[in-house]
Amino acid sequence: MKYYAYEEFKNDTQTLIHQVKGFEAETLVGIARGGLTLAHAMAEGLDLRAVQTLRTELYDGEHKRSQITVFDTVVLHNVQRVLVLDDIADSGETLAVVMQYLEDRYPQIIFKAATLFYKKTSVYTPHFWVNEAEDWIDFFWERDFK
Amino acid sequence: MKYYAYEEFKNDTQTLIHQVKGFEAETLVGIARGGLTLAHAMAEGLDLRAVQTLRTELYDGEHKRSQITVFDTVVLHNVQRVLVLDDIADSGETLAVVMQYLEDRYPQIIFKAATLFYKKTSVYTPHFWVNEAEDWIDFFWERDFK
Repeated sequence: MKYYAYEEFKNDTQTLIHQVKGFEAETLVGIARGGLTLAHAMAEGLDLRAVQTLRTELYDGEHKRSQITVFDTVVLHNVQRVLVLDDIADSGETLAVVMQYLEDRYPQIIFKAATLFYKKTSVYTPHFWVNEAEDWIDFFWERDFK
Repeated sequence: MKYYAYEEFKNDTQTLIHQVKGFEAETLVGIARGGLTLAHAMAEGLDLRAVQTLRTELYDGEHKRSQITVFDTVVLHNVQRVLVLDDIADSGETLAVVMQYLEDRYPQIIFKAATLFYKKTSVYTPHFWVNEAEDWIDFFWERDFK
């Protein structure tokens, strides 16, 4: 288990900001909770005021596969490029479901995804990512406020 | 101008988490952008998955007072207590408008507001706050990603 400190986050987020600049996103969507601090930092770095969030919940079906439900609290009007942010593409299932959901709901918008960490075994590959994750990441926001 | 570092934020947020525990909020609403990192940290500390955001925009009217518009991206169902988070109650106008807006829209919900900083001259007094602000605060999220 690797403690991911604020200083590392700061450097990685600066790297990610540099990576995504060419996409020229007009709105950021952070996936709660893991993507929220990142969404805030990216919004500051990219000088975007438009930042929103949505969250997902995992239901363990007794007789079927676990299902991810999107709690949709996103309102997108008059935008063409939206960047979706999460801390990590681990199994990748959350991002896969969220991106599909958003693309179905807003077919006229181009969505791209960016994460700080990406695991090779993820079912979804973000368009932008900074680090390959090999170990379990203990993000400072999951540790420092308990 | 005072640089507000992550370590101070960490300590203050722990204090704020302790203060708000008795309110037993079921959902957090962070005001973008300033309240987003705080909303994330509070959600982790309070073990709440339900965290949403909204944002405001200030229009300078040429012939009338500046107007704050709420971009409403909040969906609140089956909750009774909601905690609204922002970094600072400075002029307090954003919080005053947001709290009034939410109370009008959801009269059955109890809303309380919490901030890290509060200025005596603010037109709105948050229910919970940690520090009195005398100087301009240079929050780490406004500085570290530029």
